[in-house]
Amino acid sequence: MMPFSLEEYQDRLRKTKASMQKMGIDVLLITDPANMNYLSGYDGWSFYVDQMLIVIADEEEPIWIGRKMDANAAIATTWLKPQHVLYYPEDHIHSTVKHPMDYIASVLKDFRQAERRIGVEMASYYFSALAYVKLKENLPNAKFQDASLLVNWVRIVKSEQEIEYIRRAATIAGLGMETAVAMIQEGTRECDAAAAIFKSLVTGTDSYGGDYPSIVPLLPAGKNTSTPHLTWTDRKYSRNEIVIIELAGCHQRYHAPMARTVSLGKPSEEVMDVSNILVEGLNAALELIKPGVTLEEVEYAWNRVISKHGIVKESRLGYPIGIGYPPDWGEHTASIRKGDGTVLEPNMAFHMIPGLWFDDYGIEISETFRVTEDGCEVLTDFQRGLIVKDQFHIAM
Amino acid sequence: MMPFSLEEYQDRLRKTKASMQKMGIDVLLITDPANMNYLSGYDGWSFYVDQMLIVIADEEEPIWIGRKMDANAAIATTWLKPQHVLYYPEDHIHSTVKHPMDYIASVLKDFRQAERRIGVEMASYYFSALAYVKLKENLPNAKFQDASLLVNWVRIVKSEQEIEYIRRAATIAGLGMETAVAMIQEGTRECDAAAAIFKSLVTGTDSYGGDYPSIVPLLPAGKNTSTPHLTWTDRKYSRNEIVIIELAGCHQRYHAPMARTVSLGKPSEEVMDVSNILVEGLNAALELIKPGVTLEEVEYAWNRVISKHGIVKESRLGYPIGIGYPPDWGEHTASIRKGDGTVLEPNMAFHMIPGLWFDDYGIEISETFRVTEDGCEVLTDFQRGLIVKDQFHIAM
Repeated sequence: MMPFSLEEYQDRLRKTKASMQKMGIDVLLITDPANMNYLSGYDGWSFYVDQMLIVIADEEEPIWIGRKMDANAAIATTWLKPQHVLYYPEDHIHSTVKHPMDYIASVLKDFRQAERRIGVEMASYYFSALAYVKLKENLPNAKFQDASLLVNWVRIVKSEQEIEYIRRAATIAGLGMETAVAMIQEGTRECDAAAAIFKSLVTGTDSYGGDYPSIVPLLPAGKNTSTPHLTWTDRKYSRNEIVIIELAGCHQRYHAPMARTVSLGKPSEEVMDVSNILVEGLNAALELIKPGVTLEEVEYAWNRVISKHGIVKESRLGYPIGIGYPPDWGEHTASIRKGDGTVLEPNMAFHMIPGLWFDDYGIEISETFRVTEDGCEVLTDFQRGLIVKDQFHIAM
Repeated sequence: MMPFSLEEYQDRLRKTKASMQKMGIDVLLITDPANMNYLSGYDGWSFYVDQMLIVIADEEEPIWIGRKMDANAAIATTWLKPQHVLYYPEDHIHSTVKHPMDYIASVLKDFRQAERRIGVEMASYYFSALAYVKLKENLPNAKFQDASLLVNWVRIVKSEQEIEYIRRAATIAGLGMETAVAMIQEGTRECDAAAAIFKSLVTGTDSYGGDYPSIVPLLPAGKNTSTPHLTWTDRKYSRNEIVIIELAGCHQRYHAPMARTVSLGKPSEEVMDVSNILVEGLNAALELIKPGVTLEEVEYAWNRVISKHGIVKESRLGYPIGIGYPPDWGEHTASIRKGDGTVLEPNMAFHMIPGLWFDDYGIEISETFRVTEDGCEVLTDFQRGLIVKDQFHIAM
């Protein structure tokens, strides 16, 4: 029933505890849903209320604490013993007097963890400033320490089974992109294109279904391609505009993102040129990928190409991907950019996204890849270049 | 182009400033994307990085600060002057040495706001514990104050235009539910049902398109109906199981949620009985809705019905809805529950969700309603009751 073997979860937990020991952390309070899933298997859309997975250095099994109605979801989706699934009283939800962290602190006291060194994910979306303040108030003798990316760094090298799920996600991403390219045309409403893309992404293939991606399809069009994170409206596509599609396939919460740019009608010379430069740079960067290379070296290969053509890109070229929950599919650890000395290892997986955004248009063409034993395997599979659609044919 | 008139945005801002004054707040730092949208119109999937809208009591127009690549999205979607759209340098993204709040603090200093009383949304998903600590470190002379629900409370009474968008969202929710009921049957994969539901929700109607709901369709099935927040897998529905569908239509970021429960095959007597009790209680609560009634009175009407039948529900009966971004479509202010003395006013809008979850099954049948001048208008429109599907017909 579970997506990974018990051994794999326990191996992840072992690595997490090793990092805790290195950082001098006795108790790790995990609130990032991707990290909770990674270690326990927990999977439910309940991260909009306070919940956490507690890893205690000298306890074999973690403890899940959340809302009562979600406890059965923890029993259904994790490998934890039912007695390791706890819940706080319902009157702690959206209350002005009680906070879930009051209860969680009392549990930590009961388990005699209240005076230890406690790691918290200070940068997690689901550990609010208020949660932190409440926890500190309740545990005045604990020593708090930021452990924001502790589990994320454990996640950066994938197992074979994880790569298999990303591979499936990449296949699904390709199906979604095929649908997008077919749907986006003059006179079609943006929402109808988005609807069809969602259908492809969630259907998946006959052999495996799609899960919800952490980010909805991003579909800036026309002048709005100058910015990457706009979604869709119900306006209709018009002749002679370009449309960016950034989407991800998702399977078992593993993501494979991909971006392409479609030109409705003949593109301007500038758009064509920039697209070609972008692909040249993307290829140069992908060619460099292999174990032992650093991320800043990869960025340099890209940057050398674009700067030769007088183009500057300030934003990073990519980031590691894997398990994700809204609002992001990136792992927030390494970045493919200047100054990042992270060394590539086999089975690291990244989204390399050389987006270029100018004042009145932008181009994105991206790939998801993994590092192999001696090179690079691009997992997404779709014609790499500007996709030109005119009335009569699609040129890819 | 914008979903509301400039006057409506300015009226919202005026009310927000009045609340700020009452709470003694000079500067309000808004990080909740729904609140940012409400006041400025900002709409983009960029809330996964730090960004905010700054409202200064004695400045006419708010300031948007975010990532450089998202600044054009702010110019495209807000009514703010371009010079009120600022951005922090790209090297502040996922950096271990620089934090966006360092930059934002420097802007507040430049604007001479560094020693004032600053309200922050301590409970916002998008104001991390780290962001709070960084901001405080950078602004040691400011007085910080929790203003978590300040704008949310302004949002609780809707304008006619807002109600119109919720009405459209409710129509879309009905289309999504129709698709769900049609798709969910023995032998169909859960992911295929989810894919078809997404397509309906995002397509919308011929007159207006659907936007992405803040929560994906929740689809617990079989024993997993004992917990409400599970999504879908690629298993196939089997004969004689029940399936809960909770979804929302969304238009212009306004939501209308709705839940129904489908029984594949003849339901057990218990499931039938509990469904009928639930609807009896839901009707009793809806009948009470009118201006002047308190939320705890509404809950009491519901509770009297279920306790008569020996059923206990600890969780609240509902919450206000409106603009939403992942991970939640609730407004986090009032709750329909014991002890909540909030008094109903015309054009408040709620999701009333009498979910009942037991050890091995659960039932949800819910409605979105608005308070009228003298009563209640249920906006969602779908047969209110357990939906029984057998091989030959759908009984609703």
